Amino acid sequence: MRIEEDCIGKLAVDEDVLYGIHTTRALANFPISHERTDPLLFKSLIIIKKSAAQVNAAAGTLAVPKAKAIIAACNSLLMGEHNDALVAPAIQGSAGTSVNMNVNEVIANLASRHTTERVHPNDDVNQCQSTNDTYPTAGKMAALQALPPLQQALTFLVKSLLAKADEFADVVKVGRTQLQDAVPTTFGHTFQAYAHLFQRDQVRLTRAAEDLRVVNLGGTAIGTGLNASPYYREHIVRQVNRLIDLSLEQADDLVDATQNCDVLVAFSGAMKGLATDLSKFANDLRLLSSGPQAGLNELHLPAKQAGSSIMPGKVNPVIPEVVNQIAFQIIGQDVTISMAAEAGQLELNAFEPIIFRDLLQGERYLARGIDTLTTNCVTGLTVNQQQCADNVEHSAISATILSPYIGYEATMKLVKTSLEKHVAIPELLRRHHQLPDTLIAQLFSPAVMTNEEPVQKEAAGEKR
Amino acid sequence: MRIEEDCIGKLAVDEDVLYGIHTTRALANFPISHERTDPLLFKSLIIIKKSAAQVNAAAGTLAVPKAKAIIAACNSLLMGEHNDALVAPAIQGSAGTSVNMNVNEVIANLASRHTTERVHPNDDVNQCQSTNDTYPTAGKMAALQALPPLQQALTFLVKSLLAKADEFADVVKVGRTQLQDAVPTTFGHTFQAYAHLFQRDQVRLTRAAEDLRVVNLGGTAIGTGLNASPYYREHIVRQVNRLIDLSLEQADDLVDATQNCDVLVAFSGAMKGLATDLSKFANDLRLLSSGPQAGLNELHLPAKQAGSSIMPGKVNPVIPEVVNQIAFQIIGQDVTISMAAEAGQLELNAFEPIIFRDLLQGERYLARGIDTLTTNCVTGLTVNQQQCADNVEHSAISATILSPYIGYEATMKLVKTSLEKHVAIPELLRRHHQLPDTLIAQLFSPAVMTNEEPVQKEAAGEKR
Amino acid sequence: MRIEEDCIGKLAVDEDVLYGIHTTRALANFPISHERTDPLLFKSLIIIKKSAAQVNAAAGTLAVPKAKAIIAACNSLLMGEHNDALVAPAIQGSAGTSVNMNVNEVIANLASRHTTERVHPNDDVNQCQSTNDTYPTAGKMAALQALPPLQQALTFLVKSLLAKADEFADVVKVGRTQLQDAVPTTFGHTFQAYAHLFQRDQVRLTRAAEDLRVVNLGGTAIGTGLNASPYYREHIVRQVNRLIDLSLEQADDLVDATQNCDVLVAFSGAMKGLATDLSKFANDLRLLSSGPQAGLNELHLPAKQAGSSIMPGKVNPVIPEVVNQIAFQIIGQDVTISMAAEAGQLELNAFEPIIFRDLLQGERYLARGIDTLTTNCVTGLTVNQQQCADNVEHSAISATILSPYIGYEATMKLVKTSLEKHVAIPELLRRHHQLPDTLIAQLFSPAVMTNEEPVQKEAAGEKR
Amino acid sequence: MRIEEDCIGKLAVDEDVLYGIHTTRALANFPISHERTDPLLFKSLIIIKKSAAQVNAAAGTLAVPKAKAIIAACNSLLMGEHNDALVAPAIQGSAGTSVNMNVNEVIANLASRHTTERVHPNDDVNQCQSTNDTYPTAGKMAALQALPPLQQALTFLVKSLLAKADEFADVVKVGRTQLQDAVPTTFGHTFQAYAHLFQRDQVRLTRAAEDLRVVNLGGTAIGTGLNASPYYREHIVRQVNRLIDLSLEQADDLVDATQNCDVLVAFSGAMKGLATDLSKFANDLRLLSSGPQAGLNELHLPAKQAGSSIMPGKVNPVIPEVVNQIAFQIIGQDVTISMAAEAGQLELNAFEPIIFRDLLQGERYLARGIDTLTTNCVTGLTVNQQQCADNVEHSAISATILSPYIGYEATMKLVKTSLEKHVAIPELLRRHHQLPDTLIAQLFSPAVMTNEEPVQKEAAGEKR
Repeated sequence: MRIEEDCIGKLAVDEDVLYGIHTTRALANFPISHERTDPLLFKSLIIIKKSAAQVNAAAGTLAVPKAKAIIAACNSLLMGEHNDALVAPAIQGSAGTSVNMNVNEVIANLASRHTTERVHPNDDVNQCQSTNDTYPTAGKMAALQALPPLQQALTFLVKSLLAKADEFADVVKVGRTQLQDAVPTTFGHTFQAYAHLFQRDQVRLTRAAEDLRVVNLGGTAIGTGLNASPYYREHIVRQVNRLIDLSLEQADDLVDATQNCDVLVAFSGAMKGLATDLSKFANDLRLLSSGPQAGLNELHLPAKQAGSSIMPGKVNPVIPEVVNQIAFQIIGQDVTISMAAEAGQLELNAFEPIIFRDLLQGERYLARGIDTLTTNCVTGLTVNQQQCADNVEHSAISATILSPYIGYEATMKLVKTSLEKHVAIPELLRRHHQLPDTLIAQLFSPAVMTNEEPVQKEAAGEKR
Repeated sequence: MRIEEDCIGKLAVDEDVLYGIHTTRALANFPISHERTDPLLFKSLIIIKKSAAQVNAAAGTLAVPKAKAIIAACNSLLMGEHNDALVAPAIQGSAGTSVNMNVNEVIANLASRHTTERVHPNDDVNQCQSTNDTYPTAGKMAALQALPPLQQALTFLVKSLLAKADEFADVVKVGRTQLQDAVPTTFGHTFQAYAHLFQRDQVRLTRAAEDLRVVNLGGTAIGTGLNASPYYREHIVRQVNRLIDLSLEQADDLVDATQNCDVLVAFSGAMKGLATDLSKFANDLRLLSSGPQAGLNELHLPAKQAGSSIMPGKVNPVIPEVVNQIAFQIIGQDVTISMAAEAGQLELNAFEPIIFRDLLQGERYLARGIDTLTTNCVTGLTVNQQQCADNVEHSAISATILSPYIGYEATMKLVKTSLEKHVAIPELLRRHHQLPDTLIAQLFSPAVMTNEEPVQKEAAGEKR
Repeated sequence: MRIEEDCIGKLAVDEDVLYGIHTTRALANFPISHERTDPLLFKSLIIIKKSAAQVNAAAGTLAVPKAKAIIAACNSLLMGEHNDALVAPAIQGSAGTSVNMNVNEVIANLASRHTTERVHPNDDVNQCQSTNDTYPTAGKMAALQALPPLQQALTFLVKSLLAKADEFADVVKVGRTQLQDAVPTTFGHTFQAYAHLFQRDQVRLTRAAEDLRVVNLGGTAIGTGLNASPYYREHIVRQVNRLIDLSLEQADDLVDATQNCDVLVAFSGAMKGLATDLSKFANDLRLLSSGPQAGLNELHLPAKQAGSSIMPGKVNPVIPEVVNQIAFQIIGQDVTISMAAEAGQLELNAFEPIIFRDLLQGERYLARGIDTLTTNCVTGLTVNQQQCADNVEHSAISATILSPYIGYEATMKLVKTSLEKHVAIPELLRRHHQLPDTLIAQLFSPAVMTNEEPVQKEAAGEKR
Repeated sequence: MRIEEDCIGKLAVDEDVLYGIHTTRALANFPISHERTDPLLFKSLIIIKKSAAQVNAAAGTLAVPKAKAIIAACNSLLMGEHNDALVAPAIQGSAGTSVNMNVNEVIANLASRHTTERVHPNDDVNQCQSTNDTYPTAGKMAALQALPPLQQALTFLVKSLLAKADEFADVVKVGRTQLQDAVPTTFGHTFQAYAHLFQRDQVRLTRAAEDLRVVNLGGTAIGTGLNASPYYREHIVRQVNRLIDLSLEQADDLVDATQNCDVLVAFSGAMKGLATDLSKFANDLRLLSSGPQAGLNELHLPAKQAGSSIMPGKVNPVIPEVVNQIAFQIIGQDVTISMAAEAGQLELNAFEPIIFRDLLQGERYLARGIDTLTTNCVTGLTVNQQQCADNVEHSAISATILSPYIGYEATMKLVKTSLEKHVAIPELLRRHHQLPDTLIAQLFSPAVMTNEEPVQKEAAGEKR
């Protein structure tokens, strides 16, 4: 045990650990779960520390040997060494101070091994910095780093959906509005629509992420930049950009950028929108593949695991199901993040830890959920052409196409008759000679019913 | 115009109106919507004013002529007269002061018509009271009064569901888990399950409403009861109970009861639970009635209106759809109410107006939504017996019943064969002589498959 | 009474009303509240009907006399005549069919007064249209029309905040992080930060609204455009743009645009973000103006109404309070909208009515809430300079500025001593001759403490 | 590698692992996070398996040697052995099948080591069971087991609050409504109110947990109990109760109990209510302890860690802050749970895994959050008596007590004068001889202002 002291008093710190009194207190104060602060956030914070040492050495406010020792310590941590020492809890009070001090302490202790003069966690490692600018900057950096896997997952999903749209372009099927049979469409249309939906989500995520690049680094405690040298303020963001390519920009109004979490709420909102869309898509997949006998049974999902411990041979849509659940989690966490942002007071939001925890977890859950959705479900989808064709053939509502010819009310009566007598519409029409046979044949061809091809003029004749 | 004065200054008040300066300011300050404070809340507040006048007269702190005039004014308002004067906006700041003062002013002005000495809105009408105890008490009284229509709607729904359970007791149908065909059940079971679900909601609502009966009336500004006479504090709640039978109780800890909105959150939570259940039920109705041709088509909902402006003859499940939307609204408003409760600070929650507004609106929406659901949908439900029977007959998963006889794995193979070769399970069994024909007949009888009747010993023979 | 008939059967319709059987049924089916569909949505739908008549006449699919009569009817409705006939409930099932048919019926009945041949609500007024494209298009048009008042309210708020930032530029005050005293700032910074926050909200709203301009008009029932003439599909959106300048664009993928509500969720998300920020701002206003004696008391809000029915002379922050409550409502309704969007199935989202209702209500609440906030609160704000100056003078945490000179730990001890002995930091420094008097004077000048001016080199001397 | 087969096909399973093909597939299908299913849920499932083996052996449907082997395997797992084999992901599709099969496989493999005939995971371990009854039953059992630590945490919190209420009973302080100074109260009242609030939360949690005791065990796949022997159905719940004392009851309507998650929503609602209350309390703590110089500064929280990396000597309310964040998480997850419950379809809710995950996590977070709140904050609270007394002495609003003597309006003017001239109310009264000095002294004594003691008759004299 070594004895350390802070403004609270003295405390015995475990001899073996690289961190110090601040981290030790945090572990005692926040025993909520075993979940540590996100590795990407730790990594980003270390990059900031390294950048700061470089800039401060250049500014002449940090002695070169100390700077070198700090940089070496950061490099070692960035290589994944001493990972055990980065322990600040994910769920914590302190607005991130415990995370920042964890990093400061570990770096100072590592660096001090190689210097004659002790490297101080606050005066040296944290020089020109505050938790209030480094922590949210690191959080945004982490969110930006967690985004490419999510965007790649979406790109793969969209690509796979477009491929399915191509593959199923000619599969005519009954459309459904309000779960009731509607006019026909194709599975090509269906999958294209999903693809376009997720393309918009990609755009929204990218757009929302743009604002994450604006950071308050250099603002120190409340955005006024007190205790940061002018040289540091001018160079620090540039230096971070040199170490990791995230195109960060220093906010014009650092006071604003320090206290407001609106860009995090907007980013969460984009994730929530994506979650909502994923859940709608998963619902459709489960619905269209319901059965195999007493369901819609138009779509076949790849069988991924036995579905039941009691019902042999049952296979369930487990992949869409996990996607639904991830979506519910993200939607709930958007409420959490919004509440945490709303609760920020005056010059700082003390609740950033839960915001970053939920944002980063959300990005990962979504990326992995979409990955399993694409790989284990979408790419292997097949359609039940027979079922689709049968449904279209018997669909009374396909009579809609007659409306411009015989009017809404006559068509309505035809539909009622078809449903009551179980006679298909074309057959009914033929029986009653309501329309020329050639027109009937034309109208009830798949291409015309799905409006892919116009009715030929000669057949339509008297149209309207 | 008449000129009135308050601590802000002088203001011209419309000559024609019964309210005064406080209400006039509120109208100018809160022009958010045209929605007034809930009539039940106004009514409850007037009952409190009347009770207070009675008690204060008895205590000797209010002159009898003034008390009589106040009581007469209250009676007139309770008869629905001067309704135009009760205008305080539903969405407002002031923690309800604008509502309380609206009532105080209107009563004072009405009462002053019949007294020689002017009745004062604060000193007389509001004597021994504060907004902070009268307003939340009135809000709870309103919520209690809005509950019986909701409970009655639920009672009628439950009764109708049980009647349907009886009616459909023998309709065997395919069960579905995770939207995939599962072992058979009956529509009797299905509707009984819905009935029991809503019975629990009734219990939860009743339970949560119990706590609404505990009020902070007598606590005045912050629960210490300052400026309320001991006589008043002892008698006021009793007196209110005499005027309206809501079995109110005065809280033991009036400070606690004045600042905390937990019982409102709990009541909202019970409504949210009900909303969740209603939405699940509505979803099931829409799903089971999907079709009429390319859907599950096991249930027929009463046709209530033409479903489409373009597709003649289409009929949609519009009643369940409106129920879903009410449910989404209630679930969202539960977040609103929780946030408003969480935001309360120190000795008072300033955000009670939005809580009561959403609670009361929610009770009404639910009551009316359930009413239309029962009347326009549930009572007229019919089942498609043929579809149900066909589905059961072809269901491969009904083979589950064989598992205890031939094991999980052999059954699984049978199911696969049945699905691939489109041969029903009993037929497959007969072909392969796997089980005695009598047992097969027994097992695949509806009563046995739905586990209503045990397999007869002699038939089962070697069972397990 | 007149008897009308639809696919459900015959029904007596009130002789006096301009609407018909479809609307009559809707009123009976959805008696949830007295709230009608939003006037802007009705107006937009009528503009669509007028445009459609014009285009269909040009296409030759609608007889010119009928088209003229329809256009005349639309003009009359757009002038506000027959407003009583537009009654379709805001909260409804039917995915908007009741609203569309309400409009179709009223127009047909009005138009038929001036034509020999009866104008048919479906065949003529609704020609080439479906509820499923006209209703969501009208909903988006309404949302776009409700936006400028909101944006103008925000512009005025931002302008007022910037004016306050100018006015208070030199008012030095204690910063607060985690509600504890932090290094000094100015009220200029504070109000500038709020202004910049709301400027970003404006950008996000504008960005989200861009996507509302993309409509599925021309897609009819499910986006395939069945029953819409090619001429109509090509010209309808252009024609609407001629009648009202909303720069609408027809979606490239009409199937996608018909079934997905993602752009509505995104727009709701932008409103929710704004609500979150407004609530944070309102919280700060209430906190900074707390008192007048036992609170922070740094900011004075204009007194808008007497605050209490029992505590004479009390004035409360009623304007921020109403803003908080609007914010909670919007945040809750974002959950509602997300759930409604998620619940959409297959080719249509049946829950658009609650989405549009909550969106449009939200835009109005926000616009009006911000208006009252700016007019009745922000523009009249004043600061308590004396309180601010006193707080800064006695602030021990202002010692932070010494950290670069004497180190974190020595500064910490100084802070502890200052707090324990109630001696201000500069005085302590002077007593102990820790730093030259000129430097002390420099450091603890307002401009240096708020980092507006650098410490002069000669004074700083040995800095770091 | 060993090759196993299921209805999907063959798969190589790692030779070293105790689980089999079903679990292996689940790990590949649901790589969302590294979080495994909750240990309490696994434990409960194993208890069910053990009970089932005991009951099935007694029923004669499971050979005794197999039963013994299963029981031995369960015992070994319950001792914590082979923990590595329980790997089914917390976030998963499959409605829990993967968890149930993970347990079935591990038990079967362990048991088979000690039997001549191989123990089958489905036919033997899972005999008479389905995932659909065992999994939700185990989930409820887990939730019940996670409750006592939460209730104990609450009991300790309540006790500590009551102790503080005693300790601070005589500390008079300014009350605050809407953050503005109100009539005086005591810190005794304040802490008593918090205690009573949390006592109600305890009752609500207990009440909601009662319903968790009702389980669908014995209902198998959809509640009809197919494939469970009558003996098993009658004895299984009793047997589970013998192994672990949770007073479970078998639901009367097993179909209902299998498909509906309402009791989980209700339990989540109780947790959400608690979270809301905790957050309000944490907000109050942070507010009352704000400062130490430029804040309310009436309450001192124990200093738990240095508050800032840049501001030496700063101490922040980190413990309440972590409680706020836990509360936001729970409130968000209540939305998640409600959505998951709402999304259940027909005979089963496929989204139980996310419900149980969030419920169990929530119980733990709350228990631990409350523990740290009590231990590290509440028990060490002290009050700043001087500040409280000063605030009361200078409070103009304490004039409220005069209202019954001189009327609302005269009091209002007195308050205005007091605030403008900075003269305390009693002094003003004395100067103007408005009331007898003895009465003034009486009225402005702490006990009278806080309404603990009545004004003595002789002093009050002309009262009203």
